[in-house]
Amino acid sequence: MDVRVLAHTPDPVRVIYTAARTCYSAGRPSELWAEEAPRERMERLIRRVVESGHHSVLEHVSATFRMTGVSRAMTHQLVRHRLCSFTQQSQRYVDEKKFGFVEPESIRKSPAAHELFQRAMDEAREAYRRLQELGVRNEDARFVLPNAVESQIVVTANLREWRHIVELRCRPGSQWEIRRACGEVLRLLKQHVPTAFEDLRLDEGGTLATPMGDD
Amino acid sequence: MDVRVLAHTPDPVRVIYTAARTCYSAGRPSELWAEEAPRERMERLIRRVVESGHHSVLEHVSATFRMTGVSRAMTHQLVRHRLCSFTQQSQRYVDEKKFGFVEPESIRKSPAAHELFQRAMDEAREAYRRLQELGVRNEDARFVLPNAVESQIVVTANLREWRHIVELRCRPGSQWEIRRACGEVLRLLKQHVPTAFEDLRLDEGGTLATPMGDD
Amino acid sequence: MDVRVLAHTPDPVRVIYTAARTCYSAGRPSELWAEEAPRERMERLIRRVVESGHHSVLEHVSATFRMTGVSRAMTHQLVRHRLCSFTQQSQRYVDEKKFGFVEPESIRKSPAAHELFQRAMDEAREAYRRLQELGVRNEDARFVLPNAVESQIVVTANLREWRHIVELRCRPGSQWEIRRACGEVLRLLKQHVPTAFEDLRLDEGGTLATPMGDD
Amino acid sequence: MDVRVLAHTPDPVRVIYTAARTCYSAGRPSELWAEEAPRERMERLIRRVVESGHHSVLEHVSATFRMTGVSRAMTHQLVRHRLCSFTQQSQRYVDEKKFGFVEPESIRKSPAAHELFQRAMDEAREAYRRLQELGVRNEDARFVLPNAVESQIVVTANLREWRHIVELRCRPGSQWEIRRACGEVLRLLKQHVPTAFEDLRLDEGGTLATPMGDD
Repeated sequence: MDVRVLAHTPDPVRVIYTAARTCYSAGRPSELWAEEAPRERMERLIRRVVESGHHSVLEHVSATFRMTGVSRAMTHQLVRHRLCSFTQQSQRYVDEKKFGFVEPESIRKSPAAHELFQRAMDEAREAYRRLQELGVRNEDARFVLPNAVESQIVVTANLREWRHIVELRCRPGSQWEIRRACGEVLRLLKQHVPTAFEDLRLDEGGTLATPMGDD
Repeated sequence: MDVRVLAHTPDPVRVIYTAARTCYSAGRPSELWAEEAPRERMERLIRRVVESGHHSVLEHVSATFRMTGVSRAMTHQLVRHRLCSFTQQSQRYVDEKKFGFVEPESIRKSPAAHELFQRAMDEAREAYRRLQELGVRNEDARFVLPNAVESQIVVTANLREWRHIVELRCRPGSQWEIRRACGEVLRLLKQHVPTAFEDLRLDEGGTLATPMGDD
Repeated sequence: MDVRVLAHTPDPVRVIYTAARTCYSAGRPSELWAEEAPRERMERLIRRVVESGHHSVLEHVSATFRMTGVSRAMTHQLVRHRLCSFTQQSQRYVDEKKFGFVEPESIRKSPAAHELFQRAMDEAREAYRRLQELGVRNEDARFVLPNAVESQIVVTANLREWRHIVELRCRPGSQWEIRRACGEVLRLLKQHVPTAFEDLRLDEGGTLATPMGDD
Repeated sequence: MDVRVLAHTPDPVRVIYTAARTCYSAGRPSELWAEEAPRERMERLIRRVVESGHHSVLEHVSATFRMTGVSRAMTHQLVRHRLCSFTQQSQRYVDEKKFGFVEPESIRKSPAAHELFQRAMDEAREAYRRLQELGVRNEDARFVLPNAVESQIVVTANLREWRHIVELRCRPGSQWEIRRACGEVLRLLKQHVPTAFEDLRLDEGGTLATPMGDD
């Protein structure tokens, strides 16, 4: 699995600060455009916004990630988040005869399970290739491909939604692969927009160490 | 594949008519609540709404379908529609050792491909069972399950969104399984709310016979 | 203010129960369609769903309300809920020369403020009429109309979203008019779908008596 | 009215191109990250995307605008766009005793209407101030404020949604103020992301000169 930032709204702290000030400010436009608050004051406001739960201003900043080496099992869960934008590798068009795959840790650590799993992947690949040779199109041949097949996906969401996703998916009960992917997302967001994510911390096992709100 | 109506907003024509009248009516509440327009007048208004493209009033009526015997390949596409609500059978929790599966027509009609496909299903089922026996949990064992595995899903959307989905998915270029499912949805909607769908017609091949707008 | 149910998905308990069972059930379609669980068992499941916070199955039931005699000040807030569908009386088309209006309690109870307010309404109505007489179209004449002007609006949302709205808008800090409208919504939902709302209770002042989750 | 870009996703062409390639590319991650396509090839792909109507990849780029000097009449319409994020100046908290206002052209150009309008603004301001003096809070005193009162609002949407909004609101039948605001948005988007908006052109009257798709 590889998760990278493809892009995010530049200078997130200033964007969030400016939006938040719009709510309460009676100022005339000319003053507002000139505002050049010290960074520290802007960050203090954002901390207060995060603490108070008035997260709507976080929506003005978006972040785009590209995930590769993730299974279709995981992406089928991920695309359920309806406030995100997704672009995913299409199994209808792409030739998957050399597909990569994701092997769960619980399988890899058992030699018997591991061997069985590898064979299942080989059999699936073989079936896919032979269906292609018989003239079956990729979009139908893929019916034999396993959930483990690697996919790549580009995901965009705003920071309010990313907070929600991370809080939901980094829980102990979440499926391990989506928890790992969202853990990576959080790690990267803490680098790029620390002020908006400093209250969310992962423990060593990669689950949220912070108390959860309701979803 | 089996698609059924689980529920829909009752008396859709009256609901849409009442909402549409709210826009333009200056009436006082007391008059409005008493309105008992002849059915024919209500239907005429709805036809005009559909033709004019002012579809927002269709959002006040929702319809819920239950689809069974559809592949995970298809549901992975379906759940991309972000204005729907979905509840899907979970492969994390359900024991899939007796899974049913969907076989594409292009495979079934070729004896060689059909045999190959059946064997691939048997091999996947066998791998899944043996992983279970080795103590691997369902949520990890499912990584060997193919896209063909049958799922069941409950989908709710409002009528404006159903129109959009049907127009998008009943095009000639759509994947056959989602086209067939959405064709069933349209057939059922034409039974339950004929006035709001009478302009959308499927030809014999199950694709829309009507000109398409942009999506 | 008058708030009425225009429609809701019929037999909500059965719809929610059936959706919830889809998640975990391995049953074949034929069995599933036949299911006729005792009502008590269905309600127990829904209580568990509400308590556990897995509210997505509540999305399969929607409810439509018609609100009349509410101010444009209030509807400007209400339409910010982006998961709802709205149809609102249009000030561009409707002739508002006999507009009704909403007078805040804090103004009505003070004779001086009340008189001042009534006069302001009269002045606005007079300005509107005279602009009309000068040939100004309704859509421009309305620029002189006050926030207090009565509007009517039809709102549809699913039960998960209605829970969210009620929890947000029936807080002590909410604006009084939207709190009152959403209090009415809750009262009606408790009549029509008691099982899904029995944990939400209003105190005598019309604010939620129950502890709040995070929004 | 003043409309400015507050922020947008940096290097939109590269972001859209990279997302679009994800769909069809079978490449391994390492190759993908290294991709450095010539700008011309990237722009060609985006033109094709726009023409073909496969606009979902445009969602990975978002743009944030700040509008000032716009009326509450207009913002009540604008906030109906449910795929946007909004932060608006709050009349509950801000003291509006010196409010600015928007005067429609149809009124300004007629001396009689203009005088009448100015007086209506003065009367409303006077009523607001005197209610404040009587101890009425801003959130209730604002019930006398007219639709013409100036507001400021920050709006974020992705490029697919901005295309939709512009196509809807720059039509001849749209209300003049929202048409003007969205015309400004289009003018700015054409500067910042020309490739994604070059097919949309405004005529001299500020309405779209291009044929419309369905909404």
